Amino acid sequence: MTALHTDLYEIRMAVSYLRRGMTEPATFSLFARTLPHDRGFLVAAGLADCLTFLERFGFADDELAYLRDHLGMARADLDALARLRFDGDVWAVPEGRVVFAGEPLLEVTAPLPQAQLVETALLNFVTFQSLVATKAARCRIAAPDAELIDFAARRAHGLGAALAVARAAAVVGFAGTSNVAAAREFGLTPLGTMAHSYVQAFPSEAASFTAFAEDFPDNAVFLVDTYDTVGGVRAAIEVAGKLALPDDRVGIRLDSGDLSELAHAARRLLDAAGLRRARIVASGGLDEHELAALVASGAPIDSYGVGTRFGVSADAPSLDSAYKLVEYAGRPVRKLSPGKVSVPGAKQVYRRAPGEPDMLALRQEAPPPRAEPLLARVMHGGRRAHPAETREKVSEARDRFDHDLAWLPRAVCRLRAPDTVPVRHSAALLALSERPTGVRSGPDRGPSHSL
Amino acid sequence: MTALHTDLYEIRMAVSYLRRGMTEPATFSLFARTLPHDRGFLVAAGLADCLTFLERFGFADDELAYLRDHLGMARADLDALARLRFDGDVWAVPEGRVVFAGEPLLEVTAPLPQAQLVETALLNFVTFQSLVATKAARCRIAAPDAELIDFAARRAHGLGAALAVARAAAVVGFAGTSNVAAAREFGLTPLGTMAHSYVQAFPSEAASFTAFAEDFPDNAVFLVDTYDTVGGVRAAIEVAGKLALPDDRVGIRLDSGDLSELAHAARRLLDAAGLRRARIVASGGLDEHELAALVASGAPIDSYGVGTRFGVSADAPSLDSAYKLVEYAGRPVRKLSPGKVSVPGAKQVYRRAPGEPDMLALRQEAPPPRAEPLLARVMHGGRRAHPAETREKVSEARDRFDHDLAWLPRAVCRLRAPDTVPVRHSAALLALSERPTGVRSGPDRGPSHSL
Repeated sequence: MTALHTDLYEIRMAVSYLRRGMTEPATFSLFARTLPHDRGFLVAAGLADCLTFLERFGFADDELAYLRDHLGMARADLDALARLRFDGDVWAVPEGRVVFAGEPLLEVTAPLPQAQLVETALLNFVTFQSLVATKAARCRIAAPDAELIDFAARRAHGLGAALAVARAAAVVGFAGTSNVAAAREFGLTPLGTMAHSYVQAFPSEAASFTAFAEDFPDNAVFLVDTYDTVGGVRAAIEVAGKLALPDDRVGIRLDSGDLSELAHAARRLLDAAGLRRARIVASGGLDEHELAALVASGAPIDSYGVGTRFGVSADAPSLDSAYKLVEYAGRPVRKLSPGKVSVPGAKQVYRRAPGEPDMLALRQEAPPPRAEPLLARVMHGGRRAHPAETREKVSEARDRFDHDLAWLPRAVCRLRAPDTVPVRHSAALLALSERPTGVRSGPDRGPSHSL
Repeated sequence: MTALHTDLYEIRMAVSYLRRGMTEPATFSLFARTLPHDRGFLVAAGLADCLTFLERFGFADDELAYLRDHLGMARADLDALARLRFDGDVWAVPEGRVVFAGEPLLEVTAPLPQAQLVETALLNFVTFQSLVATKAARCRIAAPDAELIDFAARRAHGLGAALAVARAAAVVGFAGTSNVAAAREFGLTPLGTMAHSYVQAFPSEAASFTAFAEDFPDNAVFLVDTYDTVGGVRAAIEVAGKLALPDDRVGIRLDSGDLSELAHAARRLLDAAGLRRARIVASGGLDEHELAALVASGAPIDSYGVGTRFGVSADAPSLDSAYKLVEYAGRPVRKLSPGKVSVPGAKQVYRRAPGEPDMLALRQEAPPPRAEPLLARVMHGGRRAHPAETREKVSEARDRFDHDLAWLPRAVCRLRAPDTVPVRHSAALLALSERPTGVRSGPDRGPSHSL
């Protein structure tokens, strides 16, 4: 049971709704109000966790006891909460697809108390995972021909974040992850070399390389910068020679200094020693901008380990996401707070011919011609439309991302000041948005009118 | 069992060490090489998770099966990994204490394979939790007299991060958290009001306020900005009057617009209505700089809900932390990589009289006069020095933070361009740092010498 992963106000509101029988269907829309700076698009992610959460949703006995003992909740309220399960519908953009600001990533339609209580967790999953999948996509755009490896586990925001980061990286085509728990959980490729401490634990650098090559002759990637990088490359070459390692099983990792210059120097030394297929791996404080600069410099780097700045989405560590009530009991609703106006009604997003902007429409409208709906019904009556199988989902999501990346205009993929893609609103949606809400602000001086 | 929460290279190195009998004691030191910009200090956090992780450390059978099936590990290596538990010592700075760059937050001394394998998880816990505790401390410094509430759950980097954020906030004196799971887990005060969706689900704003006040008459805080903030305040006053709510049980929350101006306007309206003790809560994109500006403006705000920008430490979402081998088998070791030089030997940090800088010394040195050691032995032979009791730990950590905050020079607490506190190295440490390492870089042309 998981329902306690929520903000207190969700529980208080749910109790209030339940007391009053306000359990008619509500639709909430989850979307990014704006994109972070330098972002032209978002990669949808987090849906798998949303569905698992919703399937398991409910208050366990010990959770209800906590609410009784620490919040003084009354027996009747606790009984009503105890009966809650999620039995609503979810429409969502599949993971890996590219979306834009204002486009719903997910819409929930369920009895109001249920739809309200799951807000915090759904926002949490979709916000962070889409954010970091987008950061990973930028790394892939920066270095399209290189092998990218997730090295973020140690400075991600907790072990759970580290797992999510590894998965998001795989969605956009990273080759693997250093995170073994994540590799196991999601069926990814675990990758890794050696640390400085390994080199230091031996009496000499060459002794450490020899030991490593003896133990891992199929994949002997030597970390060469513990003392002096060029000296380290020479030691690697000497060890490879002494042990007669095939050059396609050998590599070096650069983790400090001028990576482009050192990669050129290392490549020359390796080639001169006949180790033409030896791989060069680079790491150390990399992000998409560093990758782009290294690629532009012609640095002969085969693989990049990208860690902290990717895993925390350092230049944009949050996303302006929202989960907004857009319809209750058949009545479209919206919010007028400054800077936070929301668009009413359950929606669909249509992707159209290249060059045409996406169209945001009411879900029940007839689709525009030759348009592909992005939101699919992934849960109906609390049950998944498709059985869960996490491993397949990652590769399917990667296929979707590959498709959308090929479709995205280059100017939208730029790492700095990308073009933004406008989203058109359908005529029906515009008409609904402009109708008075009928809801009265301020003191209640008379009956109010629903739409 | 938890040992798979690690980077692959840790496992490969551990296997290599185990094959060679390299199991002598190793000491690793975990510290921040530098502080993020605008940070004059760090608040230590994450230790509780480290100790729990180390107590439970080990590979489960299914984890070993994964290593066998997916990494092709040999039976003998798996058997050696299966026997591993953590039976080392841990010295650490208690949570809530203030530390500076270069000062160890934690040191592990254990047989080399164990000490190596736990690197990723220990770095993960200490890096993020110290980072966010520091961000929370800055919020407290910005608004020392206000009640601060953690609102970060929805955009923290995962549900686990949300829990850690709530706890870190409590360590530096936040009054409570919106996160119910965190409140339960760590014995914190759950706090919360209502969302815009609640206001929208009713036919009028006043109807929603009336319902809420009927259901929660002891703590009726009305969100007033769904349609028009001043109108919302008037509606709150009218409802409070109709239901004759005592003014100390009533409040309003502002979540958009010019918070200072709106708070002044709301205060005037509330006071004029006789609701002098009604509380004003502000939220919406706040961080320490916004808090400082609101306090400086004299805004009559009693409580602040701080969320996303605090919970992701938005201006500095990572910390330049390191876990470095400083001694192996009695031999001090260090690293010479550009920009990443490490200081050898197991250490202690001494806090001295006000005005005197901390002293970083070798652990076995005699302490300087009138100096307080910051690192305590919190684990010995794999067992905690003190039994775990998480709830008490949060309040104890808060006491330590209060003590250190009072001690910190004001210039070090500045939110922009704070003074930095130099850390002095003891004579013995300087002497050891300057001795040749005896370790040879480059090709191995002869025997090398340990220190």
